Amino acid sequence: MKLNIAYGIHAVTGLVEHKANDVVAIYLQPKPNKRHQEILAKLKNVKVTTKSIAELDAMTKGSSHQGIVVHYKESKPLYSSLEDLLSEKTDNILLLVLDGVVDPSNLGSCIRSAAAFGADAIIVPKDRAVSVNATVIKVAAGATSLVPVFEVTNLARSLEQIAENGIWLYGLSEHANLSLGSHDLKGNVALVMGGEARGIRDLTAKKCDHLVSLPTVSKFATLNVAVATGISLYEVARQK
Amino acid sequence: MKLNIAYGIHAVTGLVEHKANDVVAIYLQPKPNKRHQEILAKLKNVKVTTKSIAELDAMTKGSSHQGIVVHYKESKPLYSSLEDLLSEKTDNILLLVLDGVVDPSNLGSCIRSAAAFGADAIIVPKDRAVSVNATVIKVAAGATSLVPVFEVTNLARSLEQIAENGIWLYGLSEHANLSLGSHDLKGNVALVMGGEARGIRDLTAKKCDHLVSLPTVSKFATLNVAVATGISLYEVARQK
Repeated sequence: MKLNIAYGIHAVTGLVEHKANDVVAIYLQPKPNKRHQEILAKLKNVKVTTKSIAELDAMTKGSSHQGIVVHYKESKPLYSSLEDLLSEKTDNILLLVLDGVVDPSNLGSCIRSAAAFGADAIIVPKDRAVSVNATVIKVAAGATSLVPVFEVTNLARSLEQIAENGIWLYGLSEHANLSLGSHDLKGNVALVMGGEARGIRDLTAKKCDHLVSLPTVSKFATLNVAVATGISLYEVARQK
Repeated sequence: MKLNIAYGIHAVTGLVEHKANDVVAIYLQPKPNKRHQEILAKLKNVKVTTKSIAELDAMTKGSSHQGIVVHYKESKPLYSSLEDLLSEKTDNILLLVLDGVVDPSNLGSCIRSAAAFGADAIIVPKDRAVSVNATVIKVAAGATSLVPVFEVTNLARSLEQIAENGIWLYGLSEHANLSLGSHDLKGNVALVMGGEARGIRDLTAKKCDHLVSLPTVSKFATLNVAVATGISLYEVARQK
């Protein structure tokens, strides 16, 4: 059985709220605090092992764990691949494509927003992008168990597959004239976001049906990719 | 003359784009790369000093600087305090109140979004919240020079002041029934966001005219505060 690790109050609380049965082991600092106790109360049948702060630090490779680490079972996702999803689901599809997001906090935040707004899956390239590591899981606050992240070797080919399945591809670009909100987003939609440094790549932009912007006021100030992703998902949810 | 420090490609590029004249000194790694050169080309009259990576690390206290650090003049903000703003400006006011945001990345991202969507100012409590430090400035990518952040000692009193000036206070709470988007946000608006751990505090919530939510799909997944702030600012901008 493959086990995942989660840590930090938020991430563990999130996990417990919707997948308490998947938690198989708890590692806790000496003298648990009130928030630890709240988590324990919901995991009464799970074995608790007390660990020193140094031991917990070692388990999380130095990342902030707030005194609690858990191991949990990797549960079978609703869809195992993009192909699987596209053959199973035919309407009300919402996909999020992240073309080269490299910061784990941004990816984690995008996954959290995708879960909140009901996206079916996130598609990321295998190369030159961050994958779902422990920091991502922590920032996502449990949402990594709700939305599958598919790593694909050829993003351009995946975008073609998405288009061939009748899903409209909207590429977010600060240089686009028309705003996302000016489009009708009630059908099958894939939102395509660029990475932190360079935005959406030319090759990716060419595969999109529409390039769209978000209506910011200042020409100087740009949005963080995780914020732009949250706003775009909100706009789709708002219209539905 | 008080000098500020900025570092990292994004933050320095942002600064250069709208306040090139304020930059007084550049500290650069040996062998500048293409992106460093692009910045230098826009700052031809500014003195450049080559520093080792270790020296730059020391200047930024270990934060990631991507080989470039600059010093720049603190320019006079449009408004010097909340009182000043409220006495000078009477319509089309947009304020952002952050009640206890503690993560510097979140504050930086909120400032960046506030600048993008044209907020007049951000109000934060002096205690139990992060203030504008070097990490915040970096994440804000230059936006700290565009939107003043007012630290207040008594947030409840400041909220009263805001209300007395005819500004509607909307407190974001995931437990509220009505969504932000169901309100008419075309007048003077203050968006009030809670901190990462506990959301909006009771005392703060009581001072708001309306408690509102964002229409998420999943009951489990919540939004990161910087993302919720970005979406709320977007909703105000969208309606205007």
